[in-house]
Amino acid sequence: MSDIGPILLLNGPNLNMLGVRQPEVYGRETLSDVVALVGETAARHGVQIVDFQSNSEEALINRLHESLGNIAGIIINPAGFTHTSVALRDALVIPDVPIVEVHISNVHAREEFRRHSYVSPIATAVVAGMGTFGYVAALEFLVRLLGSQDEVAP
Amino acid sequence: MSDIGPILLLNGPNLNMLGVRQPEVYGRETLSDVVALVGETAARHGVQIVDFQSNSEEALINRLHESLGNIAGIIINPAGFTHTSVALRDALVIPDVPIVEVHISNVHAREEFRRHSYVSPIATAVVAGMGTFGYVAALEFLVRLLGSQDEVAP
Amino acid sequence: MSDIGPILLLNGPNLNMLGVRQPEVYGRETLSDVVALVGETAARHGVQIVDFQSNSEEALINRLHESLGNIAGIIINPAGFTHTSVALRDALVIPDVPIVEVHISNVHAREEFRRHSYVSPIATAVVAGMGTFGYVAALEFLVRLLGSQDEVAP
Amino acid sequence: MSDIGPILLLNGPNLNMLGVRQPEVYGRETLSDVVALVGETAARHGVQIVDFQSNSEEALINRLHESLGNIAGIIINPAGFTHTSVALRDALVIPDVPIVEVHISNVHAREEFRRHSYVSPIATAVVAGMGTFGYVAALEFLVRLLGSQDEVAP
Amino acid sequence: MSDIGPILLLNGPNLNMLGVRQPEVYGRETLSDVVALVGETAARHGVQIVDFQSNSEEALINRLHESLGNIAGIIINPAGFTHTSVALRDALVIPDVPIVEVHISNVHAREEFRRHSYVSPIATAVVAGMGTFGYVAALEFLVRLLGSQDEVAP
Amino acid sequence: MSDIGPILLLNGPNLNMLGVRQPEVYGRETLSDVVALVGETAARHGVQIVDFQSNSEEALINRLHESLGNIAGIIINPAGFTHTSVALRDALVIPDVPIVEVHISNVHAREEFRRHSYVSPIATAVVAGMGTFGYVAALEFLVRLLGSQDEVAP
Amino acid sequence: MSDIGPILLLNGPNLNMLGVRQPEVYGRETLSDVVALVGETAARHGVQIVDFQSNSEEALINRLHESLGNIAGIIINPAGFTHTSVALRDALVIPDVPIVEVHISNVHAREEFRRHSYVSPIATAVVAGMGTFGYVAALEFLVRLLGSQDEVAP
Amino acid sequence: MSDIGPILLLNGPNLNMLGVRQPEVYGRETLSDVVALVGETAARHGVQIVDFQSNSEEALINRLHESLGNIAGIIINPAGFTHTSVALRDALVIPDVPIVEVHISNVHAREEFRRHSYVSPIATAVVAGMGTFGYVAALEFLVRLLGSQDEVAP
Amino acid sequence: MSDIGPILLLNGPNLNMLGVRQPEVYGRETLSDVVALVGETAARHGVQIVDFQSNSEEALINRLHESLGNIAGIIINPAGFTHTSVALRDALVIPDVPIVEVHISNVHAREEFRRHSYVSPIATAVVAGMGTFGYVAALEFLVRLLGSQDEVAP
Amino acid sequence: MSDIGPILLLNGPNLNMLGVRQPEVYGRETLSDVVALVGETAARHGVQIVDFQSNSEEALINRLHESLGNIAGIIINPAGFTHTSVALRDALVIPDVPIVEVHISNVHAREEFRRHSYVSPIATAVVAGMGTFGYVAALEFLVRLLGSQDEVAP
Amino acid sequence: MSDIGPILLLNGPNLNMLGVRQPEVYGRETLSDVVALVGETAARHGVQIVDFQSNSEEALINRLHESLGNIAGIIINPAGFTHTSVALRDALVIPDVPIVEVHISNVHAREEFRRHSYVSPIATAVVAGMGTFGYVAALEFLVRLLGSQDEVAP
Amino acid sequence: MSDIGPILLLNGPNLNMLGVRQPEVYGRETLSDVVALVGETAARHGVQIVDFQSNSEEALINRLHESLGNIAGIIINPAGFTHTSVALRDALVIPDVPIVEVHISNVHAREEFRRHSYVSPIATAVVAGMGTFGYVAALEFLVRLLGSQDEVAP
Repeated sequence: MSDIGPILLLNGPNLNMLGVRQPEVYGRETLSDVVALVGETAARHGVQIVDFQSNSEEALINRLHESLGNIAGIIINPAGFTHTSVALRDALVIPDVPIVEVHISNVHAREEFRRHSYVSPIATAVVAGMGTFGYVAALEFLVRLLGSQDEVAP
Repeated sequence: MSDIGPILLLNGPNLNMLGVRQPEVYGRETLSDVVALVGETAARHGVQIVDFQSNSEEALINRLHESLGNIAGIIINPAGFTHTSVALRDALVIPDVPIVEVHISNVHAREEFRRHSYVSPIATAVVAGMGTFGYVAALEFLVRLLGSQDEVAP
Repeated sequence: MSDIGPILLLNGPNLNMLGVRQPEVYGRETLSDVVALVGETAARHGVQIVDFQSNSEEALINRLHESLGNIAGIIINPAGFTHTSVALRDALVIPDVPIVEVHISNVHAREEFRRHSYVSPIATAVVAGMGTFGYVAALEFLVRLLGSQDEVAP
Repeated sequence: MSDIGPILLLNGPNLNMLGVRQPEVYGRETLSDVVALVGETAARHGVQIVDFQSNSEEALINRLHESLGNIAGIIINPAGFTHTSVALRDALVIPDVPIVEVHISNVHAREEFRRHSYVSPIATAVVAGMGTFGYVAALEFLVRLLGSQDEVAP
Repeated sequence: MSDIGPILLLNGPNLNMLGVRQPEVYGRETLSDVVALVGETAARHGVQIVDFQSNSEEALINRLHESLGNIAGIIINPAGFTHTSVALRDALVIPDVPIVEVHISNVHAREEFRRHSYVSPIATAVVAGMGTFGYVAALEFLVRLLGSQDEVAP
Repeated sequence: MSDIGPILLLNGPNLNMLGVRQPEVYGRETLSDVVALVGETAARHGVQIVDFQSNSEEALINRLHESLGNIAGIIINPAGFTHTSVALRDALVIPDVPIVEVHISNVHAREEFRRHSYVSPIATAVVAGMGTFGYVAALEFLVRLLGSQDEVAP
Repeated sequence: MSDIGPILLLNGPNLNMLGVRQPEVYGRETLSDVVALVGETAARHGVQIVDFQSNSEEALINRLHESLGNIAGIIINPAGFTHTSVALRDALVIPDVPIVEVHISNVHAREEFRRHSYVSPIATAVVAGMGTFGYVAALEFLVRLLGSQDEVAP
Repeated sequence: MSDIGPILLLNGPNLNMLGVRQPEVYGRETLSDVVALVGETAARHGVQIVDFQSNSEEALINRLHESLGNIAGIIINPAGFTHTSVALRDALVIPDVPIVEVHISNVHAREEFRRHSYVSPIATAVVAGMGTFGYVAALEFLVRLLGSQDEVAP
Repeated sequence: MSDIGPILLLNGPNLNMLGVRQPEVYGRETLSDVVALVGETAARHGVQIVDFQSNSEEALINRLHESLGNIAGIIINPAGFTHTSVALRDALVIPDVPIVEVHISNVHAREEFRRHSYVSPIATAVVAGMGTFGYVAALEFLVRLLGSQDEVAP
Repeated sequence: MSDIGPILLLNGPNLNMLGVRQPEVYGRETLSDVVALVGETAARHGVQIVDFQSNSEEALINRLHESLGNIAGIIINPAGFTHTSVALRDALVIPDVPIVEVHISNVHAREEFRRHSYVSPIATAVVAGMGTFGYVAALEFLVRLLGSQDEVAP
Repeated sequence: MSDIGPILLLNGPNLNMLGVRQPEVYGRETLSDVVALVGETAARHGVQIVDFQSNSEEALINRLHESLGNIAGIIINPAGFTHTSVALRDALVIPDVPIVEVHISNVHAREEFRRHSYVSPIATAVVAGMGTFGYVAALEFLVRLLGSQDEVAP
Repeated sequence: MSDIGPILLLNGPNLNMLGVRQPEVYGRETLSDVVALVGETAARHGVQIVDFQSNSEEALINRLHESLGNIAGIIINPAGFTHTSVALRDALVIPDVPIVEVHISNVHAREEFRRHSYVSPIATAVVAGMGTFGYVAALEFLVRLLGSQDEVAP
């Protein structure tokens, strides 16, 4: 087992519909597939994934509050809340751990309003457009980041 | 050997100084280290990396022109040109292959002008703030993307 | 009975207070009256109305997810969410049916911020300022639109 | 015969070409069809329609001046003048009757400049994207609005 | 008789309705009254007034073209065209004489869009909010301006 | 007992974490301490405090609906919703009582986006940067305001 | 003697230099000449002029305070304070009398920043570009405005 | 005779004054000269020119409506309407033929507001600053464009 | 006597007219009443108030300079200078003590330009809309803030 | 041989790829074809063309420096540098000869950022969207312009 | 003694506190030291310095008026008035001599609002960030500028 | 010899043409003259100047890279790159020494786009409009700055 604490995997509104709606566009991978995919990677590194999806801003905020002291990092796809929720931004800094913001599509190539994120300025890293692999990349990054920090602190 | 064609790894202005200047801030990894790191990952996938760094907008553009027909994907850290070069953007679309834009630091948490990129709207994916691991993530993504495309085309 | 599928009638935050607060300003019609009014029109066309009001962004999003495949059109008064919710916008396109956006008051004659709508660009039609009759007009329009589409498809 | 006075139906520039140009896009209904359609609805309510189309800003303004004291309401599709004519706006308030602004297409889903209207802030109601039915909805609304006002005044 | 040439008095859209509509708001003075008022002042100075009102941008432009070489100054209330007509602005500079822009109401205390004028930067003077007296002030100013110019040229 | 009705004390998202997270920054006072502090002041004035905190926009809106007719004033710290929620703003005006907006920190000295509030234009008073004492000041103000109103009405 | 109370004639910063500096540009009329000119017009109407110039914002504000109850109207050339002084604007509304804003040059044809005035929205009338005659026009207007008001009130 | 259909040559407001006003600035060529010049070029290519100038937005729109089905291309100098007329833009797309926008002067080197054109985004080509030769260049371009299209279609 | 040093109470332009002008709007409390009110509160806490009002930006700046080393905190109502004076802002930071910005009215509910304050970003706290009680709240806050600081420093 | 001096034909970044990349989109004409095309036209007028293409901003600037005193006019397609290079703009004015800016595509119908040009305000003429014929038109214009200037100077 | 006339050295608000407040930040040089420093340089060039500091905009303006005809150049550090005073700008051009604007700190590296100066566009030169040496550089520049001008005029 | 290390004197694009082009405007001093002028000043202080001019952004960046560890300060006139090059800005901070930005003309009195500099926020000092003397002032400043730093460190 790794010395790295659990990683909170948060998914925001509408991501529960992944793979269900318009599979010819978004692919056939469901959110469960994503969680499984991330879980496999995590298992390989001996890291625990705590996964939570909600269409509710409140639920996401509450989940972050509960995580205070229990997690080592956050992977979040804030979906539509990316561009509109200061409350979620404020909640994200509470656990005081590294945050990776993930977007499945390349938000920079879509509507103008999707180019502004309330989360990015408080995130450690941001990845967009890599499809579901973006979550895996986020986890791999966090594992390296947190692993090296462990090394620093003997 | 993979069926995926070579990946062009482009690094823009000032990235030749990586690891040399202020190592206490930017870490001790040099650009050679980055290329080696990406090279190892590439080797594992049987993919060839064609690497090029320049402080010259012209040289980067020329390198893209020469790549027309020879490469399967582009990983680019446009550095300062990200925010100012339409010419580089225009050159990037010429090879007509997937592009991943990489930034070592989280540009969204720095000066306001770094939040606008001429490259992002024409990129397939964008990653920022993952340090040098961002290049590795970009390659892993491209390998998956191009590999799955190969599968589609029998 | 019409061949047109059910129409989802969504009402956003504070609309449950219709007719209750300041009746001298907003009139004495309650939300129940609105639903009844729309219901009568629907009955006349042999169309079923599925009605839902919530002050919760999440609840509205969930209701839209559940409607995937079950409805033929959407009439929505997004109220305050009109101007602020990207998540609701993203949920509205999931059922992939025509959307009519309704506002009881003329939002263009009020505060500047009410002139921007995240919903309008993805709606088929928008009506504002017709009071509760706007819902009836929306339904009449949808019946015609969907009816003619049925005619097209033999 | 209704107690409601005549309704002025104004159509702005290029609407005389309705149904003539690109019928595969705009449908085959001509402006005459629209006037007939509104006329039928009006007849059913015992209301008179005074219809006028012009590509001339002046002619529309003059028509509004002549209507002072003779009409009970205005239905106007200002077309291209929507976004550019302060003079028309100023003329619209002269008759001092309720105004309904109609757009056949959903202007909010087109070019950015079509989202601003000089007419909307002085209109009672606005409808967009309902095709030619928007005129009917506008009339139905006006009949209800003016009818109820009559009731108020014994 | 004065040595000063004729003064063109132009009034733009809706000003023909002055005194007719809502006299309790705009006063009971009609456009004829204004012309008479200015005429009296002009007569006192031995100056001829050429007066023209139109709701047509074209007619105003044509009138300016015809004035080339025949007039010594322009008094214009461009009304709604103030904020929207580049064509009128371009026509106004053709006679190459001093221009005084008059607004009956104080446009700076009304809607934001009324604070921008295409005419002001090419006018010699601008007066707003003086009611119909503004025209008289404009004429008095022009008489002094043109008179002193005559004096300069022996 | 005072003649002043109950005061609704609303706290928005993340304020339940007060005193728990980063006490070296935000102090060790918890939300319970705040409520107690306000309660003491209220007791001294013979005024009842109805306190409610939620991370849910819906819950706050519902609480405001329920308060219609039951409260004499509102003290609200909208936290992150300050800058983003039109729905909450619309709900706040429903009870039709004086509103005091409280921010613990000085929002004007933080990120640019915190300088805009949807609540301030409909509030009676706004206080920011006084820490938890801001709530006490808000209550003291409301007691004076409501008390003097009582005096006016014999 | 007229029944109209005294008119306060205020001139702002740098206007004491009128006629002294660059007479070939601004003419040879000094501020004394202006005051004399206005005085003659006032005398003809039996109206008293109270004249005050200062380069001090404070002095102008104080002068306005002292005028509360003593004056019937204000003619002000706020010069550079036009575009920058909210304090002067606030002072101008205290006497609660009609205000005419005068600019000797046409501020709309100069630098962009001169097109915005803090005074215009609270003024009754604004005149610019008429040279020193603008003051005379302002007075003539005030005399008419105040005279007619007297007539209204028997 | 060429196989290319007639070319509509439209000139907007004030262009009838070409050569008449300020010949030392705009040159001595009149609009008739321009039409003759274009006519010669057209004759050389066996192409017919249909020429129309108006200061009336309506007349230009009507002329475009009448051209539906009768013309192969449009050369238009919209003059002042360039920057202000959505109605003209909407009319220009009706004939569904290539459009060349011509400006005699270099609009980009003049006032800021002349840099925005409602016509350019729907034009095939834009030429500015070439004086009257711009019309000739426009025609030469259209002849080549339409000629090559003819070649494509056997 | 408290250990807290004197508090400087600064009032900016036009506040000397408090209670004198339009008492039916601003109430009948004069500035003297405000000073007395604050004085009573101060006396209760054993704190000295140094009060100064001026319509002069210079006088306010000078008063701040003189206070360097002599005061423990500042309560300032900058009135019109709030939105326009960088010089006052620069002077306010010189004494290097906590600053509370007070506005009698709710500036956020008035003209747009009143929503920007040069003082707020350098203030510790800001209160608006509490009428004259805002000064008392400011003092109560400062007493608590400074008192607790004293406690920290033994 | 003409008396007109040589014309410098400059092409900016990526234009060396003309005809090579995506010929189905940009046509099969290469840059050599363009140069030949312009050369033929030049030969017909007895004018010499000095042609230079570079992807290097520096090289273009140097070429302009070398041209000082040697050329009579400039035809430039600045490509991506159009929107970003102040240095190129500054170099273009050094030879102090007429400049024609050419764009093969209609830049006004593409991305928003392509609508701004640093070159246009210092150019004599601008042509966009005429394909490679734009260069010919530019040359024809320059020949006329320079020829007529020769005529003026005997 | 030099032939160059006296140089007016103006210092704006808060600069009297130089060296007194926070010497660890701003250094220990007082304004007297600055004046002495500039004086020495001036003496070396045989030039007279007329020095004036005020926190009063009026006093600075008056000082400029008095200087008309008496000075050869101006060195001014407008401090906070830089960004807000049109009146001071207007006064600065009255003496009609070269102006050098000096800022002790680098205003471009501070708050955004400090990057705009009303003085810079009318200054001959601007220097910022050189500490007190900036004044010396300003004087050295003026001496050279004025000296060379003297040489031109025999 | 001074203890101060070498000063890098960088000149950006088009500055090699100094004195060559339009000497009646820019004077007859060439870049060599500037270098000699600065060299003399440097020699007087025993400081070495390393001078480099290029029209190539890359060359300037490379020169900065090579200077890492070898220079004590930078004087740069970035010319056109001032407003457009983030890459140059990023290179300038690498040597980690004080930077003085020099502009020969007063950029604040020219086109709007010249008022924004990417270099100023990272410079220690900025000087504009002093002609070639600006370089001398920059050096004098650096000598003082670096000299005093030496003094601090014994």
